[in-house]
Amino acid sequence: MSGSVLAPFPTELRVGVPDWLREAQAATPAQLHDRSERFALVTALATRNVEEGTGGPFAAVVVDDETGDVLSIGTNLVLHSDVASMHAEVVTLGLAHARLGSWNLGRDVGRRRTLVVNAQPCVMCLGALLWSGVSAVEYAADCATVERITGFDEGPVPEDWDEQLRARGIDVHQEHGVGAEDALHRFRELVDSGVTARYNGDGA
Amino acid sequence: MSGSVLAPFPTELRVGVPDWLREAQAATPAQLHDRSERFALVTALATRNVEEGTGGPFAAVVVDDETGDVLSIGTNLVLHSDVASMHAEVVTLGLAHARLGSWNLGRDVGRRRTLVVNAQPCVMCLGALLWSGVSAVEYAADCATVERITGFDEGPVPEDWDEQLRARGIDVHQEHGVGAEDALHRFRELVDSGVTARYNGDGA
Repeated sequence: MSGSVLAPFPTELRVGVPDWLREAQAATPAQLHDRSERFALVTALATRNVEEGTGGPFAAVVVDDETGDVLSIGTNLVLHSDVASMHAEVVTLGLAHARLGSWNLGRDVGRRRTLVVNAQPCVMCLGALLWSGVSAVEYAADCATVERITGFDEGPVPEDWDEQLRARGIDVHQEHGVGAEDALHRFRELVDSGVTARYNGDGA
Repeated sequence: MSGSVLAPFPTELRVGVPDWLREAQAATPAQLHDRSERFALVTALATRNVEEGTGGPFAAVVVDDETGDVLSIGTNLVLHSDVASMHAEVVTLGLAHARLGSWNLGRDVGRRRTLVVNAQPCVMCLGALLWSGVSAVEYAADCATVERITGFDEGPVPEDWDEQLRARGIDVHQEHGVGAEDALHRFRELVDSGVTARYNGDGA
């Protein structure tokens, strides 16, 4: 095998928002003031993402704490984009960066923004939110629940991950009772029936 | 402040390869068989990235262990793209995914690919390489060195990060004596003189 079978080097890394998610963007209110509304949105998007086959059962939203402005919504787009790092948090934070035109989502200018996600961030996304400039993360299902239901590996997330965030000035809140397990169970059903892929890096 | 000042939701997350890096892509041999060549490339790219102002002092390459094929080269593009997650590993792995059209860089089909990077991955990039499907990572400067010289926070990287990778079937090798600290020192000089930004999420 030689290098000649390879396509040329790409000149960009591009992840398009799928059509269904563009429609969801258009249908999203400009502001979401209540925590319950935010979790209703991310759990609905997570389930829709699984049904559409665009990625895993994960979705997120970035909101401005003061105004309630929705800066971005997004889902895991690994299957849609063929890029393994395109977890919901990376996509949603990335779209917020793109919208604001800044690598810092607010801490550099004293504005508080919150990442709301239906599941605790994996080890990669723990870092992504750290570097993003958000001031808080709110999640529903914890890593152990995600791993138990879906079979995903969440990586070597430190046991004191929430304290690690708080020590760096980022608030952490877990929300219960929002039906976060439904999307996880649906994903597992579709994996077990061969309809969708569990995109583990180990190829298992 | 209302939502009306915001631009519309982006329809894509797009990170273009800067012109200078396109030229570097064109100048890169199709194959790099020796470890020393690979580290010479990433240390040179890391320094160039700092001088160009496109991001931090970090660069990476993904190679095929059997053929030596260079699947991708890349650098930290946080400043170029305004997207905080665009560390060298995320960019370079992402470009390899885009080139191959697959969210798995080889483990799913039994091909071994290696990520070579001038510095130990931060907590985010530790996860990114885990999910990418590479079979090995080779690095030069460790996190403590990066933090000491540059002032960056590398996040809560587990002390046993290398064992965590090996337990998941990913080899880890640290290379010494490749001049990896030069790019880090140059970055620090440019930060201290106000020429470039240390893009910490905390805005400090």
